[in-house]
Amino acid sequence: MTFSLTILGSSSAIPILNRNPSAHLLTVNERLFLLDCAEGTQLQLRKFHIHFQRINRIFVSHLHGDHYFGLIGLLNTFHLLGRKEELHLYGPPMLKEIIDLQLLTSMTVLKYPLLFHITSNDKYNLVHEDEHVTVHSFPLLHSVPTCGFIFREKKQERKIRKDILEKLNIPFEEIRKIKKGDDYTDEHGRVFRNEKLTIDPPSPQSYSYCSDTAYTESIIPFISGCDLLYHEATFMQEMVGNAHDKLHSTTVEAATIALKAKAKKLIIGHFSARYEDLQPLLTEARTIFPETYLAEDGIVFKI
Amino acid sequence: MTFSLTILGSSSAIPILNRNPSAHLLTVNERLFLLDCAEGTQLQLRKFHIHFQRINRIFVSHLHGDHYFGLIGLLNTFHLLGRKEELHLYGPPMLKEIIDLQLLTSMTVLKYPLLFHITSNDKYNLVHEDEHVTVHSFPLLHSVPTCGFIFREKKQERKIRKDILEKLNIPFEEIRKIKKGDDYTDEHGRVFRNEKLTIDPPSPQSYSYCSDTAYTESIIPFISGCDLLYHEATFMQEMVGNAHDKLHSTTVEAATIALKAKAKKLIIGHFSARYEDLQPLLTEARTIFPETYLAEDGIVFKI
Repeated sequence: MTFSLTILGSSSAIPILNRNPSAHLLTVNERLFLLDCAEGTQLQLRKFHIHFQRINRIFVSHLHGDHYFGLIGLLNTFHLLGRKEELHLYGPPMLKEIIDLQLLTSMTVLKYPLLFHITSNDKYNLVHEDEHVTVHSFPLLHSVPTCGFIFREKKQERKIRKDILEKLNIPFEEIRKIKKGDDYTDEHGRVFRNEKLTIDPPSPQSYSYCSDTAYTESIIPFISGCDLLYHEATFMQEMVGNAHDKLHSTTVEAATIALKAKAKKLIIGHFSARYEDLQPLLTEARTIFPETYLAEDGIVFKI
Repeated sequence: MTFSLTILGSSSAIPILNRNPSAHLLTVNERLFLLDCAEGTQLQLRKFHIHFQRINRIFVSHLHGDHYFGLIGLLNTFHLLGRKEELHLYGPPMLKEIIDLQLLTSMTVLKYPLLFHITSNDKYNLVHEDEHVTVHSFPLLHSVPTCGFIFREKKQERKIRKDILEKLNIPFEEIRKIKKGDDYTDEHGRVFRNEKLTIDPPSPQSYSYCSDTAYTESIIPFISGCDLLYHEATFMQEMVGNAHDKLHSTTVEAATIALKAKAKKLIIGHFSARYEDLQPLLTEARTIFPETYLAEDGIVFKI
């Protein structure tokens, strides 16, 4: 099962030429989830050759412009390209009002169903579940109501060994049961134990998106042990005062959260436009958490 | 006096990689006027090295997204960069509501005064005047209320001949009068006729912006004789049916308006994303109006 993350934007509030503001694309088993949608995201999707009509769920962390000003344009482009499939949108209540007003003003009646799901940042909430994945939101600490999200793959069925399938003529219905962990009894009454028939599936992966937040250990229980953690790091540690004032985080703070949450890998992003060279931010974060990587526009993390 | 136009976007509704949707930057005597502001305009301004904090007036023709979705982002960037100067915004009434809602939602109180001027598309209206230029709006024919704009330079003062200035010791106060067309009488009572003292100033220039419109001869009186006319040409003539249905224009229609309005030069733009190669559109328009040019992102027209 594919589980990969494409960074569409790594800048903080001000877009600059080689860094768009926040948007992440998560692919889980060929399904595309968009996290935040800054101005210019639709062009980033084109630039990185993503079939963006396949996005069916968009999650907006909060209503600062660098996280959603590109959403209305993307919704409009879906419409103009003749989209018919449902699109699910998860975000704060006012997001619906803003979009509805802009659609009304341009007399646009979308050709596809846009289904709005209000997120609330009061507690850990299940916001989406399907056969492959669960998505929970949780509160971040920022100047407007802001949600983080964690995507967890569900445990996959056990894989039947190929040589066994070739040797035993197992009926289709039994295969389904074996994949779920049952033993198999053949027509002669021979019992085959499940562990002889199957191999372990790959372990389920998880990705957590902490878009804009001050340092807060309150999020650790929600993201604990996640395979890939994105945590904003707007500033170097020397600007920790600015970070606190603006309810953002530093490299060291992001890395400390990753360490305490026992994440496997950390991606830092949402870089202040003041930093042309990002290597010092990476080096600083790695002093605390060596498995840190930079969010850079267009980069893909495969888990 | 500089009078130049930079094309920031030439695509119709759907942005593509080498063509952003509509935005034009007009420079008149070092003052920058922005016409429309599609998603991505702020990045185009950066890309083309324009000191965009110097924009003091923004004109929005109508509330289709490909003409204004980038406005809120630009306003926000002005704010984040610490702008203090007034910004004047001209557009339909609902534009204010949309911007106010987005600012309110993000709890943003702009650091600079944003002064909103409502445009109405019922008739030819003076919307701005200063010592160098007048700006009028006029109704276009589109599916939502849409304004065209015409910028007209004011007649400049007469220029005093350099050799005369060197020869005669004309008092400062008299120079002001001569520039306005007066004759000059020196201390010996000698009268110098104005036409001997001065040369004609450059003729005042005009630029007309017809963003989205079906073919309508009703606009001709407003744009008659203008030096540079931008008229949308979304389609080739073979798609005239589509153009009529969508209240857009073809190459031939744009060129016909230029011809009938006795414009000096025509720029066509707002090209449908279906056209990769724009040369056929140019060739077609030139069969009617030879002085036609393509709007291409980044191109500058100096008048």
